[in-house]
Amino acid sequence: MIGFALFGCGRIGRMHARNLHAHPGAELVTCFDVAGPAAAAVAAELGVPQAQSVDEVLANPRVRAVFIASSTDTHVDLIARSVQAGKAVLCEKPVDLDIARVDACWQAIAGLQPLVMLGFNRRFDPSFRALRDRLAAGEIGRLEQVVITSRDPAPPPPAYIAVSGGLFRDMTIHDFDLARFLAGDIVEVQAMGANLIDPTIQAQGDIDAAMLVMRAASGALVHINNSRRCAYGYDQRIEAFGEAGMLQAHNQHPTTVEAWGGARTRAMDPVPHFFIERYADAYRSELDHFIDCVNTGAAPLAGFAEGREALRLADAALDSMKSGRAVRLA
Amino acid sequence: MIGFALFGCGRIGRMHARNLHAHPGAELVTCFDVAGPAAAAVAAELGVPQAQSVDEVLANPRVRAVFIASSTDTHVDLIARSVQAGKAVLCEKPVDLDIARVDACWQAIAGLQPLVMLGFNRRFDPSFRALRDRLAAGEIGRLEQVVITSRDPAPPPPAYIAVSGGLFRDMTIHDFDLARFLAGDIVEVQAMGANLIDPTIQAQGDIDAAMLVMRAASGALVHINNSRRCAYGYDQRIEAFGEAGMLQAHNQHPTTVEAWGGARTRAMDPVPHFFIERYADAYRSELDHFIDCVNTGAAPLAGFAEGREALRLADAALDSMKSGRAVRLA
Amino acid sequence: MIGFALFGCGRIGRMHARNLHAHPGAELVTCFDVAGPAAAAVAAELGVPQAQSVDEVLANPRVRAVFIASSTDTHVDLIARSVQAGKAVLCEKPVDLDIARVDACWQAIAGLQPLVMLGFNRRFDPSFRALRDRLAAGEIGRLEQVVITSRDPAPPPPAYIAVSGGLFRDMTIHDFDLARFLAGDIVEVQAMGANLIDPTIQAQGDIDAAMLVMRAASGALVHINNSRRCAYGYDQRIEAFGEAGMLQAHNQHPTTVEAWGGARTRAMDPVPHFFIERYADAYRSELDHFIDCVNTGAAPLAGFAEGREALRLADAALDSMKSGRAVRLA
Amino acid sequence: MIGFALFGCGRIGRMHARNLHAHPGAELVTCFDVAGPAAAAVAAELGVPQAQSVDEVLANPRVRAVFIASSTDTHVDLIARSVQAGKAVLCEKPVDLDIARVDACWQAIAGLQPLVMLGFNRRFDPSFRALRDRLAAGEIGRLEQVVITSRDPAPPPPAYIAVSGGLFRDMTIHDFDLARFLAGDIVEVQAMGANLIDPTIQAQGDIDAAMLVMRAASGALVHINNSRRCAYGYDQRIEAFGEAGMLQAHNQHPTTVEAWGGARTRAMDPVPHFFIERYADAYRSELDHFIDCVNTGAAPLAGFAEGREALRLADAALDSMKSGRAVRLA
Repeated sequence: MIGFALFGCGRIGRMHARNLHAHPGAELVTCFDVAGPAAAAVAAELGVPQAQSVDEVLANPRVRAVFIASSTDTHVDLIARSVQAGKAVLCEKPVDLDIARVDACWQAIAGLQPLVMLGFNRRFDPSFRALRDRLAAGEIGRLEQVVITSRDPAPPPPAYIAVSGGLFRDMTIHDFDLARFLAGDIVEVQAMGANLIDPTIQAQGDIDAAMLVMRAASGALVHINNSRRCAYGYDQRIEAFGEAGMLQAHNQHPTTVEAWGGARTRAMDPVPHFFIERYADAYRSELDHFIDCVNTGAAPLAGFAEGREALRLADAALDSMKSGRAVRLA
Repeated sequence: MIGFALFGCGRIGRMHARNLHAHPGAELVTCFDVAGPAAAAVAAELGVPQAQSVDEVLANPRVRAVFIASSTDTHVDLIARSVQAGKAVLCEKPVDLDIARVDACWQAIAGLQPLVMLGFNRRFDPSFRALRDRLAAGEIGRLEQVVITSRDPAPPPPAYIAVSGGLFRDMTIHDFDLARFLAGDIVEVQAMGANLIDPTIQAQGDIDAAMLVMRAASGALVHINNSRRCAYGYDQRIEAFGEAGMLQAHNQHPTTVEAWGGARTRAMDPVPHFFIERYADAYRSELDHFIDCVNTGAAPLAGFAEGREALRLADAALDSMKSGRAVRLA
Repeated sequence: MIGFALFGCGRIGRMHARNLHAHPGAELVTCFDVAGPAAAAVAAELGVPQAQSVDEVLANPRVRAVFIASSTDTHVDLIARSVQAGKAVLCEKPVDLDIARVDACWQAIAGLQPLVMLGFNRRFDPSFRALRDRLAAGEIGRLEQVVITSRDPAPPPPAYIAVSGGLFRDMTIHDFDLARFLAGDIVEVQAMGANLIDPTIQAQGDIDAAMLVMRAASGALVHINNSRRCAYGYDQRIEAFGEAGMLQAHNQHPTTVEAWGGARTRAMDPVPHFFIERYADAYRSELDHFIDCVNTGAAPLAGFAEGREALRLADAALDSMKSGRAVRLA
Repeated sequence: MIGFALFGCGRIGRMHARNLHAHPGAELVTCFDVAGPAAAAVAAELGVPQAQSVDEVLANPRVRAVFIASSTDTHVDLIARSVQAGKAVLCEKPVDLDIARVDACWQAIAGLQPLVMLGFNRRFDPSFRALRDRLAAGEIGRLEQVVITSRDPAPPPPAYIAVSGGLFRDMTIHDFDLARFLAGDIVEVQAMGANLIDPTIQAQGDIDAAMLVMRAASGALVHINNSRRCAYGYDQRIEAFGEAGMLQAHNQHPTTVEAWGGARTRAMDPVPHFFIERYADAYRSELDHFIDCVNTGAAPLAGFAEGREALRLADAALDSMKSGRAVRLA
């Protein structure tokens, strides 16, 4: 039984709290949020004590692991302090929006041989994971092309956009990591962005749609398409194409019911609305994996380095979009 | 090049006339219909002479084969006279609505070793044919269960019902033959009919929906469901279940386009409206097969005996529905 | 928080025990099995005391509800004693294999206005439930035809067959209840059975495949097909056809991954192996519903009467199969 | 009845010859090929006279239209001479591999107000056409993203590659035109190519896989992915994404048969092998359209300008791939 503390008790933090509470191998020991009422709500719902400070959390000897679900700008500090306090760390993506701060964080903790895992939920989705395992097993031979489709149901509010780091660092970052999960290291990035959906996003200097092409060190080509709006729900798909065939992971529908009528046939319901619903199984599986790592000392499927690489790709994409040039990564 | 005459120039006759006209191995030599203007229309469209009588057709030495698409009550007479005139015969289903007349027809022609083929179009549908070939090749091992779904888009008019012989002899007859095509000879029939759609059909003493269960000599069980109305088009499907798996033949959609929207996803268009559209390829393939039989002397995939057996099953179903008993066939 | 006792700690009992343990509104207070080690295993896994007798369970004032997952022949006795002890009852199907014993049970408890719910899991499957809700909402107008496909992955062992009551009372009973759930009361049953799979089942006087047709009081026709073996997994589907269209509930696949290769395209994995996997969500939802009924006094979606009606249909099917006659129910 | 001459009697020329022969509104008057035996074969099969020279063809007053299916390097000359001889022209893609020659051709004929149609078969595919019509009808609102998948079953032989103009001008040219058909004029192109399949293609200085991103004048983003090899057949798909939803056109399967077995479920057959099979309907429909244009004087759906624009995009893609820069089109 691993004792956990939760940093950050907002929407996603609350979901993680419930998963921790329900997990047979975890015990939620305490929770903290700079917004006291958010932490109080989680504490009350799950019957755990609310901590008054980060220090209090880190001083608690029953806390062996921390789950960081607080705002992005707090991640590197919490990672470093938690590692220095001897805790294992599971941190929501991204590590940070600034690669210099990411590198400084790593400098500060690298010598401690820390267990730091990044919450890249796609790696733990049962269908995406099965697709990757079948790739690895050679089912379609050498991987040649990947198409990742990733469209959010609706644009976030302006306040979110303002601190998001932009579409590539906030949204595409998941797809960059997924690209690496499937195709390995990326050596070249081309990106094209667009403002098609929400003028307030443009006014804030961000884009709301993008298409990218990347080249992996293996030679494989990867396409990502993103949109901040999708009428039929949260569109999350993979297509992996290789010398011997293709594997696709499709959207999930809430039921298996198909309707046939005079106007249309085979119609199914829209797809689960957003990440909390779509990746519910993945979040549970991610927690399983982290607890296994804590218990066994195994390296996590998505470590600190994965967080750093995804951010580098986001920066490269931004550079490519602005310069109109393909960006090569060393 | 086989010279053909067409008997019957109504809607389906006209379609067959066009197929004959377009076929590289056939020549439409003449056509006849008791309704002169119908024959005149076909003659004019395709530039062939219109015959004034059956005798004129049968006396024409260029006519090696006849296509009988006239009304059901004329079939046995035309079959017998055509065979006696030395013609090969391709006749629309059914042979007749009265088994005694069917048997009398056969008595009259059996000694002539006739080439008589019945137009059971399902046997020539590319998907149904592929399914049957894969059954025969052993893909799912021993066949155990068959489910045939067969639903017309809309009920026929009362005048048609009046001379149709009833749902089993008119509509299910195709499914009886399809059952035999897939599962072989049938030894037991249970039928339940219902009036769910059109009160005028009930007033005429017929049913408009039915479900049947049959046992094949092989032991396989077969289910047929029929309806005289189907909101999404002409529903024509097969499911064959065996010891090693299942083969399904699904409906055909006019295009491969799928629509995803806020209310529904994966929606396709309704299915082709009725038999002329749905079995267009089958009718062409049926003609290919008949011409091959004429040229090579091979026995047709659906001979006179298939027409007789399908009618026997229709009679058995009617008996079962009325008596509430399973009917065993000798 | 409802205190529960579990009767029967075999495979399905253990699954229910885990669901009870995980449910926020339930507390598993104790468990009992005539096979002591089975109860001991559940008790140890979940940290609950193991009872030594039925009397001890029923005397426990913390037990407000009992979950009966013991062998079928114990159901009526446990139902009656539990109700008489003032407990709410959730009982696995079937009530019993003998309609006389079912009726006697009801006689004994009817005056107590008991809360007795039958574990007809299909009613709680999210897809089947959604289909039924959409029927009820009028999406396809009047219901005209239902096709229920229900095929087990592999035949049970001879010892199970010996006490199962036969295919109709053991396996089809779920489909009879599902037919009533969708189409309402049934007034006529035709059944045809077959021995296609396992000679030992035939040697025991049972069948291993069946096709049935039934008529509902509403006029709708219902087809059920059953098999004791299915190569691709546990085949559980519904097709509901009405005046305005069709609703289908399809099989569930473990992932959304499709494979395209040189030999075949669009291939997915086989379907979940058996009821524990296939109806995992349904079992949880069934428990939710029962707890709601205990808390609110609402009548359960599947009460004692549903258990009795399903058994009557099984008896009628057996009668029809043996006599070759359609059986009408009063 | 339009009199046609066919230039080029190779594989695709022969297919067009058969379509011309079967078309009720066309008459194949004569055919010519620099390889005499190829023309002789078509002439013999269809019973038409073989011409001995281009001049003989163009001097034939019964020839109102020419179908140019000869090698690419002959196109501009045949277009110009045919137009100057007063013929309507249907020419296989591409116009030429050199934009200067294309422009010179247009200079030579522009004053004659010619009817020149390019054989961009995708525009006439029933599914792609339906998708585009539904876009135009506003079904998904403003178009935001297009994903075009276009993968050939197997690489062509070295001799073909040598004269092909390279992947972008030979293969992607269809997808460039399709992009314009769906999203309108293109203003920016980014391309990444790769050698993943056939070393002899690399040795010839060409690529065998590519991914592109383009921006339309409307703001929409378009992705194209290409491969010279595809294990499951000829992969031809469109995904159009807009503010109100998505339309997809999927691959066509030869039958509707699905197989379910112990290893996989829902498996269908591979998709039609190459363009002759996949676009059989499209080629017929293309011919219908051209004949309509000849008869009515209407402008063709794909005129000379479409041929020129597709080539410009191919040139831009090549430039982008070599320079690593996004290329803007005036």
